[in-house]
Amino acid sequence: MTRLFNHRAHTAGLPPGTLSIPEEWAAKAKVSVIDFTEHSLNETVPEDLTRLADYLTPNSVTWINVIGVRDVEAMHILGAAFNLHPLVLEDIVHTAQRPKLEDYQDFLYLFFKMIRVDSASGQILSEQVSLLLFDGVVISFQEREGDVFDAVRDRIRQSKGRVRKLGADYLMYILLDAVVDHYFAVLENSSEQIESIEENLLGSPDSALLSQIHSMKKDFVFLRKAVWPLREALANLERLESPLIHGPTRLFLRDVYDHTIQVIDTIETCRDVLSGLLDIYLSVVSNRMNEVMKVLTIIATIFIPITFVAGIYGMNFESMPELKQPFGYPAALAVMAAIAMGMLLYFRKKDWI
Amino acid sequence: MTRLFNHRAHTAGLPPGTLSIPEEWAAKAKVSVIDFTEHSLNETVPEDLTRLADYLTPNSVTWINVIGVRDVEAMHILGAAFNLHPLVLEDIVHTAQRPKLEDYQDFLYLFFKMIRVDSASGQILSEQVSLLLFDGVVISFQEREGDVFDAVRDRIRQSKGRVRKLGADYLMYILLDAVVDHYFAVLENSSEQIESIEENLLGSPDSALLSQIHSMKKDFVFLRKAVWPLREALANLERLESPLIHGPTRLFLRDVYDHTIQVIDTIETCRDVLSGLLDIYLSVVSNRMNEVMKVLTIIATIFIPITFVAGIYGMNFESMPELKQPFGYPAALAVMAAIAMGMLLYFRKKDWI
Amino acid sequence: MTRLFNHRAHTAGLPPGTLSIPEEWAAKAKVSVIDFTEHSLNETVPEDLTRLADYLTPNSVTWINVIGVRDVEAMHILGAAFNLHPLVLEDIVHTAQRPKLEDYQDFLYLFFKMIRVDSASGQILSEQVSLLLFDGVVISFQEREGDVFDAVRDRIRQSKGRVRKLGADYLMYILLDAVVDHYFAVLENSSEQIESIEENLLGSPDSALLSQIHSMKKDFVFLRKAVWPLREALANLERLESPLIHGPTRLFLRDVYDHTIQVIDTIETCRDVLSGLLDIYLSVVSNRMNEVMKVLTIIATIFIPITFVAGIYGMNFESMPELKQPFGYPAALAVMAAIAMGMLLYFRKKDWI
Amino acid sequence: MTRLFNHRAHTAGLPPGTLSIPEEWAAKAKVSVIDFTEHSLNETVPEDLTRLADYLTPNSVTWINVIGVRDVEAMHILGAAFNLHPLVLEDIVHTAQRPKLEDYQDFLYLFFKMIRVDSASGQILSEQVSLLLFDGVVISFQEREGDVFDAVRDRIRQSKGRVRKLGADYLMYILLDAVVDHYFAVLENSSEQIESIEENLLGSPDSALLSQIHSMKKDFVFLRKAVWPLREALANLERLESPLIHGPTRLFLRDVYDHTIQVIDTIETCRDVLSGLLDIYLSVVSNRMNEVMKVLTIIATIFIPITFVAGIYGMNFESMPELKQPFGYPAALAVMAAIAMGMLLYFRKKDWI
Amino acid sequence: MTRLFNHRAHTAGLPPGTLSIPEEWAAKAKVSVIDFTEHSLNETVPEDLTRLADYLTPNSVTWINVIGVRDVEAMHILGAAFNLHPLVLEDIVHTAQRPKLEDYQDFLYLFFKMIRVDSASGQILSEQVSLLLFDGVVISFQEREGDVFDAVRDRIRQSKGRVRKLGADYLMYILLDAVVDHYFAVLENSSEQIESIEENLLGSPDSALLSQIHSMKKDFVFLRKAVWPLREALANLERLESPLIHGPTRLFLRDVYDHTIQVIDTIETCRDVLSGLLDIYLSVVSNRMNEVMKVLTIIATIFIPITFVAGIYGMNFESMPELKQPFGYPAALAVMAAIAMGMLLYFRKKDWI
Repeated sequence: MTRLFNHRAHTAGLPPGTLSIPEEWAAKAKVSVIDFTEHSLNETVPEDLTRLADYLTPNSVTWINVIGVRDVEAMHILGAAFNLHPLVLEDIVHTAQRPKLEDYQDFLYLFFKMIRVDSASGQILSEQVSLLLFDGVVISFQEREGDVFDAVRDRIRQSKGRVRKLGADYLMYILLDAVVDHYFAVLENSSEQIESIEENLLGSPDSALLSQIHSMKKDFVFLRKAVWPLREALANLERLESPLIHGPTRLFLRDVYDHTIQVIDTIETCRDVLSGLLDIYLSVVSNRMNEVMKVLTIIATIFIPITFVAGIYGMNFESMPELKQPFGYPAALAVMAAIAMGMLLYFRKKDWI
Repeated sequence: MTRLFNHRAHTAGLPPGTLSIPEEWAAKAKVSVIDFTEHSLNETVPEDLTRLADYLTPNSVTWINVIGVRDVEAMHILGAAFNLHPLVLEDIVHTAQRPKLEDYQDFLYLFFKMIRVDSASGQILSEQVSLLLFDGVVISFQEREGDVFDAVRDRIRQSKGRVRKLGADYLMYILLDAVVDHYFAVLENSSEQIESIEENLLGSPDSALLSQIHSMKKDFVFLRKAVWPLREALANLERLESPLIHGPTRLFLRDVYDHTIQVIDTIETCRDVLSGLLDIYLSVVSNRMNEVMKVLTIIATIFIPITFVAGIYGMNFESMPELKQPFGYPAALAVMAAIAMGMLLYFRKKDWI
Repeated sequence: MTRLFNHRAHTAGLPPGTLSIPEEWAAKAKVSVIDFTEHSLNETVPEDLTRLADYLTPNSVTWINVIGVRDVEAMHILGAAFNLHPLVLEDIVHTAQRPKLEDYQDFLYLFFKMIRVDSASGQILSEQVSLLLFDGVVISFQEREGDVFDAVRDRIRQSKGRVRKLGADYLMYILLDAVVDHYFAVLENSSEQIESIEENLLGSPDSALLSQIHSMKKDFVFLRKAVWPLREALANLERLESPLIHGPTRLFLRDVYDHTIQVIDTIETCRDVLSGLLDIYLSVVSNRMNEVMKVLTIIATIFIPITFVAGIYGMNFESMPELKQPFGYPAALAVMAAIAMGMLLYFRKKDWI
Repeated sequence: MTRLFNHRAHTAGLPPGTLSIPEEWAAKAKVSVIDFTEHSLNETVPEDLTRLADYLTPNSVTWINVIGVRDVEAMHILGAAFNLHPLVLEDIVHTAQRPKLEDYQDFLYLFFKMIRVDSASGQILSEQVSLLLFDGVVISFQEREGDVFDAVRDRIRQSKGRVRKLGADYLMYILLDAVVDHYFAVLENSSEQIESIEENLLGSPDSALLSQIHSMKKDFVFLRKAVWPLREALANLERLESPLIHGPTRLFLRDVYDHTIQVIDTIETCRDVLSGLLDIYLSVVSNRMNEVMKVLTIIATIFIPITFVAGIYGMNFESMPELKQPFGYPAALAVMAAIAMGMLLYFRKKDWI
Repeated sequence: MTRLFNHRAHTAGLPPGTLSIPEEWAAKAKVSVIDFTEHSLNETVPEDLTRLADYLTPNSVTWINVIGVRDVEAMHILGAAFNLHPLVLEDIVHTAQRPKLEDYQDFLYLFFKMIRVDSASGQILSEQVSLLLFDGVVISFQEREGDVFDAVRDRIRQSKGRVRKLGADYLMYILLDAVVDHYFAVLENSSEQIESIEENLLGSPDSALLSQIHSMKKDFVFLRKAVWPLREALANLERLESPLIHGPTRLFLRDVYDHTIQVIDTIETCRDVLSGLLDIYLSVVSNRMNEVMKVLTIIATIFIPITFVAGIYGMNFESMPELKQPFGYPAALAVMAAIAMGMLLYFRKKDWI
């Protein structure tokens, strides 16, 4: 998330549609299948990926979940089984894509970013999720194992909500909704951090706060980059005249679209507030400098003149008549006190003390 | 209002359309009904919420006002009685929504933010108001008790204005108008604060002003977030080809739309002015620092050289011929005075004093 | 103009379309009528406002000018005579409206801001002008007496230009044009002020310039708010398919539209230049601070070390061999001079002096 | 160019379409005519302007060039001869117009800004050029004599390029192209200045650079204001369905449109770079201040403490045992040296020296 | 790339469509031809450029690559052979063009910027690439020799991917794709630099970082200027109803369009981050100044008052009773210590130390 650039460039020079992955990244893909109707449920881990296309019937809804998209061989098998265009496979494997929706007539292809806060480091992590919606089948691709889809899995198993009654398009919707709902969790986390920065700022600003503000600003730049195109993709999805999306599901898609807009709104708001915090930080620092300067100035301007007076009478001239006066010393002290008082009055007038 | 994020995320993982509310928030909903025609008026507090749908006749206009949307049980009864889509109920109960308009054929659904200034703390408070317009019935949902709708209630009772003669759509309009008119009261309050900040700023800036500017900027970020989507919703409402909205009411809806644009204009203007104030603040602080530095510099550059002269004649060398001169002391004083005068002339030339 | 908010909010809670004005504002409206054809001219001050609708004939062009829109009674009479929608009357009376155009089939309703510079205070004043165009009649509403329309009146009387030959739509156009032409006078005044600020700035910046820049920036925020929606209204007017606007007048309306765009361009340019001036101001202040600091640093770093040397030989140790040397004193002075010269060379190398 | 406002406002109050020019501006217009076909060429200075309309035949192409648009009498004659709408004449004479294109059926009217760098002062000068395209005639109006069109004149005389073969629309195009090509010359000049500012900036910034940056920023604000609407006018020209523009010329008009976009791109880029330079300037100034402060701080913090030690032993108390010690003096010197060394080490640790 | 302005202006005054190049730039163009079908491959270096148009047959795909577009003579021959419009030739030769697409019915003309990082200087270099797509022929023009197209050449030779099976439109696509893929390499390089700046910044900011940030900001201004119009051109290409582009290639063009948007996204993100870095830089500098000031203030305010006390007892008044006290000296030292302690406590309270 906080990388400026995901390393995609290594494919430069290869024919488009080539799946090339550095050796060390490629891990075996884990594929799991849940096949259900309103009354039946069947969970399996398929051994032969080439047979997966058999699920392509509208009789039951099938959710094929693939974790680990860098297993080039498995991807090729899946691509062949479902007759995917090479560019679709390339998009799934090279995960630094911009969220988008594509309509390939017999299937819809939607990909977007799943965002979560790493519980250990507190960093925001992002991974690409790709959804393919066929008639009766949803295939989801994740980069890493995670728990965002676990709740969906439980809901299917316990037959909670509408998921068992409605079709594959509704399944796609709840997967999408699970991810978008997770954005809110991330934003809540971030906004709590912003509020804590804000409190500290008006207390005692230090440069740690500065780099914290900076790093959050950067996070929001990336969040924005991840969510903004999703809005566009969902708007297209809503408008799409595809037989794969049925009437009742459209209402729900509009709802998830509204949530996405709300996420964007909140991101923009947070960015505005962070910019404001940076201004505050600079002002507070500048204020403190001002205060430091005032203290220096007050002390220096009081003592420099009276030190000079003391210096005068520290001179060793033979004929300095004041030195012989019995009241010379108290008089000198009185002059110094008067100078100091005058300075203090001047500062009070200037409203410095 | 000043929270960056309303805690919506706790529903993540639940099926969409689930009404889940932390126990402590759920208070019993207060429902009141006003049923009127041009010549009759009937106010009741219904005991059996399931019977409310009986009012769905075009013969009279009925206003059902619900205060406290977190009473999940009552919401479910109302939802069933009026045959509301689960997503509508979810939107009403989870109040951190973006203002929007939805057209469900047999009813319109509009929700937006009611804004008011808390008289005790001076803080800006926001709550969600949801309006459902059926043929002959308006249902309004508020989060908390408030007095914005009281004037509307009185007007109905006293049969003032057109409200008793026109239909449910006009009733919806005057509820909307009451809320938008209240925005102006909030903005007036804020703009008075801005003007008072402005006056103080050119007098004596302190860091309290800074955090006041910051907090107002944040308020306007939120006001903007609340009002901007309402403009969109109202533009849609004006364009809407729904039999629920009649011709004469459209003119009034255009009027409330214009008011909303005016609110947005004023918000943008205030934001511009606040940004300007921040610039002023920084300039004034920087100016004052400059002045402090000048005082220090003037005092130091006058006294440091003459203190040095005094230091010279404070040295204890045995053979310092000046010390023996009878006019050594006055001559030394004269030299010092000359140096001081020279410095002063230099500063005058530099236009510092 | 310089108020952030015109006090409109006092109508909150009243039925829409209610004309409510604080007592002290309501002054008697002054109504004057000029009725003319190409060959005849008739100026009257009507006694009975209810008869004004008699002028609604296409045979002659009638200009009814109303000064003082807060005379609620007169407004009600006019509203009844010309059959105006209550919302139109409300817009005319509550003058803090956003410029707009409305087409009520049998009349057009256009309102906008008249801007002028108060000759006494130099402040920019704004008032709302409303124009109603009927077939053969133009009604204009002003808040206060002013002289912007005097030139139009003279032109009608002296039969100068096309005004006596063309219809009521052309009369509306020249009233509009008179107001827009006046914007140029205001902008000329402002741009002269900006140029004078600019000259002063590079001379000697003081904080008066700062508050002048700030106040001008605020003026332009308001000018922009006043003119921008007028552009929109005029674009609508040009596109409008209304029988009230005739072919030849359309060319002139396009011309006034172009002038409005030019006004907006100039406003944006002035805002850009003012922002630049603020940057300059901050830079100049920062430059001067730099110079002050340099003087302090040069003086202090030259004298502090040599004062220290003098301090050394002011110590009263019994065994300080240097003090007994006959050349001790000149040698000490030479050392001090050498230190001072070294410092000066260092500063020259640093390019500070 | 560098005036914020061209004095147009003096026409306020006059009927629209009135040509009013302060006496001192009006100079006699110089009119020259070039009439050519592919095989013939005829240059004249017409004596009787009323006969110019005789050239309105498609048999030959005629270019009428008018220098000095403030000769009201000549303008009236031309207006009458070519049957121009009064608003067109007003636009030609009052030259502070926004570039635009107007289609008056029997002629096209395009005006825009010609920009050039005054070779003496280095200032950017702007004047309005108006082009009228009739069937077979192009009339061009310039404010002052200049040499931008000389190259076009030569090309016609020497029958270079396509100009003698194609019609009046192509002639209009090459006049337009000559002006737009000149923009590039101006931009090249400006970008060289920017590069020279940039080099100086990283050397030794002084406030002269600041006012240079400011003045260039202002220049670009005006350039932008001059060129941006031309883009719009040319886009309209390309789309225009007018019989005056023939197929082959359209390709060339698209080309000049592309050049205009390139000019705008370059202007925006220069503005971005100038803003960056201002940031750099401020940073460099702030850096230098920092360095000045460091020198002061290092000198002061080293010498102030050891001067204090010297002050201690300059006191005249009778019983100061150290003063009697034979090694008191060297010990005091040693202490001072130790303090100075400690300070230096501290600064080194802080990475200040 | 880092020049603000490519010197195009020297053509001002010449007829449009003239190819004029300063003598010293014109180098002999290198032309190479690859002609292939799925089963055959033929590479030649043609001797007679006039015969190149013979390849214009749909039977085989021909790629004519021209390196060095400033060879005016060769360009004229090519222009004549392929019947190119003079404006197309001018665009190819004068390479400071804005990326665009033009449809000349029998051929498409697309030009854009190829960007690469100079391995020696680390600077970003840009050159214009022009592609002409005829039925069966692609002509590509490069300014200088480079290796971006080498991979494409190898792929054709080894018959890798689809290139040998699909038509000239696919060849154009892979050339385009090779260039866009190279943008990613450049961006990756830049983003690594940004990350390294970021790390250094929080350590020890110096002015070298400042000029590095500035220079990268300028680079991105230019990158943006190069890539942004390409997006537009590609959007037009996708929409284009030309028989030269076949169905299967459209999917690939959409893909390269998506990549371009991703490039733009990344550029914008980098710009945002760089702006943030500049803010950080200024804050860090300001922080350090603050710290310097604090050290000075602490040292000065501790020692100035106690030096004054020492000064008092250095005065030479005859009657200073304290001087005679046996405990005068220790008492004076104690007073000084107390003052110093007080100051230290004050600073601790202020949280300065």
